[in-house]
Amino acid sequence: MGKKILRINMSDMQTSYEDVPEKWARWAGRGLTSAITYDEVDPTCHPLGPNNKVVIAPGWVTGSPAAPSSGRTSFGGKSPLTGTIKEANSGGLSGQKIAKLGLAAIILEGVPKKDKWYTLVINKDGVEFEDASGLIGKGMYDVDEILWEQYPNEPAVIGIGQAGEMKLSNAGISVNDPENKPGRYAGRGGMGAVMGARGVKAIVVDDTDGPGVDIADADLFKQGRRKLTKAIGKHDLTKKDGGLNAFGTNVLMNIINEAGGLPTRNFSAGQFEGAALNSGEKVAEIVEERGGEGMTGHSCHPGCIIQCSNIYPDEDGSALVSCLEYETAWALGANCGIDDLDYIAKMTRECNDLGVDTIEAGNTIAIAMEAGVLEFGDKEGALKTFDEIREGTPLGRIYGQGVEATAKAFGVHRVPTVKGQSMPAYEPRAIKGIGVTYATTTMGADHTSGYTIAPEIAGVGGKVDPLADEDKDALSLTFQAATAFIDSTGYCLFIAFPILDIEEGWAGMAESVAGVTGLDITGDDVIEIGKEVLKMERLFNKAAGFTPADDRLPEFMRYEELPPHNVKWTMADEDLDEVYAWVQED
Amino acid sequence: MGKKILRINMSDMQTSYEDVPEKWARWAGRGLTSAITYDEVDPTCHPLGPNNKVVIAPGWVTGSPAAPSSGRTSFGGKSPLTGTIKEANSGGLSGQKIAKLGLAAIILEGVPKKDKWYTLVINKDGVEFEDASGLIGKGMYDVDEILWEQYPNEPAVIGIGQAGEMKLSNAGISVNDPENKPGRYAGRGGMGAVMGARGVKAIVVDDTDGPGVDIADADLFKQGRRKLTKAIGKHDLTKKDGGLNAFGTNVLMNIINEAGGLPTRNFSAGQFEGAALNSGEKVAEIVEERGGEGMTGHSCHPGCIIQCSNIYPDEDGSALVSCLEYETAWALGANCGIDDLDYIAKMTRECNDLGVDTIEAGNTIAIAMEAGVLEFGDKEGALKTFDEIREGTPLGRIYGQGVEATAKAFGVHRVPTVKGQSMPAYEPRAIKGIGVTYATTTMGADHTSGYTIAPEIAGVGGKVDPLADEDKDALSLTFQAATAFIDSTGYCLFIAFPILDIEEGWAGMAESVAGVTGLDITGDDVIEIGKEVLKMERLFNKAAGFTPADDRLPEFMRYEELPPHNVKWTMADEDLDEVYAWVQED
Repeated sequence: MGKKILRINMSDMQTSYEDVPEKWARWAGRGLTSAITYDEVDPTCHPLGPNNKVVIAPGWVTGSPAAPSSGRTSFGGKSPLTGTIKEANSGGLSGQKIAKLGLAAIILEGVPKKDKWYTLVINKDGVEFEDASGLIGKGMYDVDEILWEQYPNEPAVIGIGQAGEMKLSNAGISVNDPENKPGRYAGRGGMGAVMGARGVKAIVVDDTDGPGVDIADADLFKQGRRKLTKAIGKHDLTKKDGGLNAFGTNVLMNIINEAGGLPTRNFSAGQFEGAALNSGEKVAEIVEERGGEGMTGHSCHPGCIIQCSNIYPDEDGSALVSCLEYETAWALGANCGIDDLDYIAKMTRECNDLGVDTIEAGNTIAIAMEAGVLEFGDKEGALKTFDEIREGTPLGRIYGQGVEATAKAFGVHRVPTVKGQSMPAYEPRAIKGIGVTYATTTMGADHTSGYTIAPEIAGVGGKVDPLADEDKDALSLTFQAATAFIDSTGYCLFIAFPILDIEEGWAGMAESVAGVTGLDITGDDVIEIGKEVLKMERLFNKAAGFTPADDRLPEFMRYEELPPHNVKWTMADEDLDEVYAWVQED
Repeated sequence: MGKKILRINMSDMQTSYEDVPEKWARWAGRGLTSAITYDEVDPTCHPLGPNNKVVIAPGWVTGSPAAPSSGRTSFGGKSPLTGTIKEANSGGLSGQKIAKLGLAAIILEGVPKKDKWYTLVINKDGVEFEDASGLIGKGMYDVDEILWEQYPNEPAVIGIGQAGEMKLSNAGISVNDPENKPGRYAGRGGMGAVMGARGVKAIVVDDTDGPGVDIADADLFKQGRRKLTKAIGKHDLTKKDGGLNAFGTNVLMNIINEAGGLPTRNFSAGQFEGAALNSGEKVAEIVEERGGEGMTGHSCHPGCIIQCSNIYPDEDGSALVSCLEYETAWALGANCGIDDLDYIAKMTRECNDLGVDTIEAGNTIAIAMEAGVLEFGDKEGALKTFDEIREGTPLGRIYGQGVEATAKAFGVHRVPTVKGQSMPAYEPRAIKGIGVTYATTTMGADHTSGYTIAPEIAGVGGKVDPLADEDKDALSLTFQAATAFIDSTGYCLFIAFPILDIEEGWAGMAESVAGVTGLDITGDDVIEIGKEVLKMERLFNKAAGFTPADDRLPEFMRYEELPPHNVKWTMADEDLDEVYAWVQED
């Protein structure tokens, strides 16, 4: 029995289980969400109108037994934040359960005729459309709790907070974690607003007695899985008690600050005097001190062996929020001039509850600070911005749309965005390769699309000078292509660290995919397959009206010097244009 | 003595009078603002950042003796509303006075180092930078009055209201009229925000003892002027007591409503049951009844012989506002479901005072109504939206940015914009040619860029079926090119009605330009010269990242039928792409 596509049409309340057509048969995860979006969504449609879709797809190996750290779910469609194609992926419970129901993807399309909200309940028997009016106005902490009380078998809950209900451009899609907390997010690009526009507050996925995931070649799968698991277990960053396990992604805070690449106070400096107070080391210290429910080395989904997540405890040791990521601690910390982890954790919880992306939210507060609406460092004021969003005040609706909307409302022209999406925690003037990624990726400014930080800062996959322009176009493209592949596997992107340094791991990743799917894929094919995904995405964007002129960093980075290195963005436009010069329409 | 370019740099507070370089010597008005913007403004710059400029240029014949209806001033730069190049032109006192000072253009560039506001005072002796702090927070009615009290000789006042101070994307630039009221606006595209970003609240222009405008060939000029004057005086629309003189532009209200092309309640119908109550005929009736300062047949600038403006009186006969245009009465009327001219006049006065474009403002209120923030027809609520802008509340900052920002804040996907600028008072589904203009013009949705309403509705310049798609691409291009020429002459666009029907008038226009400038221009050159202007604008937009995918009407018009004709937008994309297919980079 092959996998199916589950199509849920909200206009006529019909569902169908369709065989996966030949053209999509080789894709999963990001490759599949992008293929479906490319084929079915008009690139010029309004992202909130009836013709956009939310495509949800687990990766190739997601749900297969004991593939390490492979629980990712991709969410795709046209982004209301960027106007580009979008794939945002998340940990949490959803991917494995969707896969085990025998589904390659869920396509959520149409808009309800009546102004009504629904919870979709998906299990082995099909789909039920339940009235969600009781959940409206509630944040995701409540929604997750209510739905676990209401439905058996500890299901996956995919949902939107108040921001998604209001269809705000910074609304993300939440997935619950093993503790049924809403901290796992397909956060970037406003896909929560696209889900909200379909009238869907939540999707409950119960895989009980589902068919599970077929394995085409069990021996090959096991061989690949073993190689990959070994590489993960060996690499300094991903091994037990290694950097990520001990300190989480926030192990980067001191490192990036040291490198002068930590964007501070709305990208006006590359070092923050309070960085150490917001660091992963400090989180571990607080967890240690406070005890209780706090922990490091937490898993965001079953079967993760890296366990980079954490549970940040409040002063009494109760769980305050999971997870405090590096990008989150930066966005709500250094970039706002705030050096208090308790406040950062409270704000992160607000983001997870309301359903907004932490990176965009932190950048938004920084813009409000640049505009003088708040002062840099005003942690009380920063925390209150989330009350505005929750209450749907006009100011909250400005903030809830993210950086560009806030900058326009307050007349700010120092706007750190590309294609409408704000930059993550790496200053492109100080770390040039990531700037090439921000500028050129199909997703708007995004670090996960081509994480050149690995060789530029971490010395993973080689070692290159972060301040040099040379060859960063080729470097970024290689990372973008490898990422598009990994985002299709269902593996967490953090397997990239070990497999970049350990050749067996790279081969093992490909073999495990080949083993599950029966596709003829080896490690040598990874980059080319990734480029196929990028090509679909790039062509979608081209048809939506994007051109090389959109593949540029914001103007102020070209004329403002960034301390401490006192560097501007100097990469030539022609070099940026090289990155995607290979994409031609067939 | 040739004309000069006056360059005012706000970064270093320096001014210079420069000879007009060869490359700009043949241009004036829109041709010159677009040439300077094309040459000097980086198309990828942030519109509110230090590298955008406000270019101000009178037309070729502006300021020459007795050229009829020729007082227009063009304002150009990169638009914060659309991201495109922008030219918005205005009546009022400025054009003639700038021209009589011997200036081809004023280039306002840079941003002040200190957060300080200036009034620039320009006269025959040069430029003074005066402290404008006393004007900050004031609307344009006060500003005009204060500056006339402060400076002699009844100068032209070019200024921005509170919206421009806040750098909101719907901020226009006001020019005072002969009664020193701020009703003449370079309204569209947010150029008031660009001026505000330069730290300039107002520009006072006193042409006393200026050198005046040189006439290269007085006989040719007089011959052309005579032919044009005669044509204006003969045509039904422009003659004394003709349509425009008697009823103003609002003579169109009943006509467009009859044609089923009057956008009603956020473009959901093509007829409005209250149209007659908002019509030009009704304005004339009210003026007649109330007496006092009310009048029709008013001039927006000295030397106008069409006199289509009006002064709308309040119930006591005091002047409430000048002028109630058709587009204004539509935007704040039918499109909001409002049928009360007194309210429309009050709202228009608010627009003129705050400095926001009436078309965008009315469309914005309609979006708020579509979102349910207000009810359609709620005139009290509509009027109060301007208090929000004046006070700079978050809601006011949303409204003050116009339609797209308001739609995003409230999750509305029926958004009648092209390139970020909202549509004027003609439904493109019912009048297809104007839809081609909206879609393809270099300015975003704009009727004045290519007014095919003339042949489609008014039977001027031929008669074509408004509902037919055929040949509308060629029709729109011809109108766009002719308009680009007329916008460069300094003549009011309304000379187009007589010269389209009366060949001598067309020739006369060209001869008068040739007579003033010494350029070898005849009526046969008009379209080609207009296309040169369009080409510069189109290439700017291309470099800014615009593509044919941006030359499209909003998606909802392709799938929603418009009553009463029950028509969709059906023009093929390939036909739209034909309009500018002739533009190639050199």
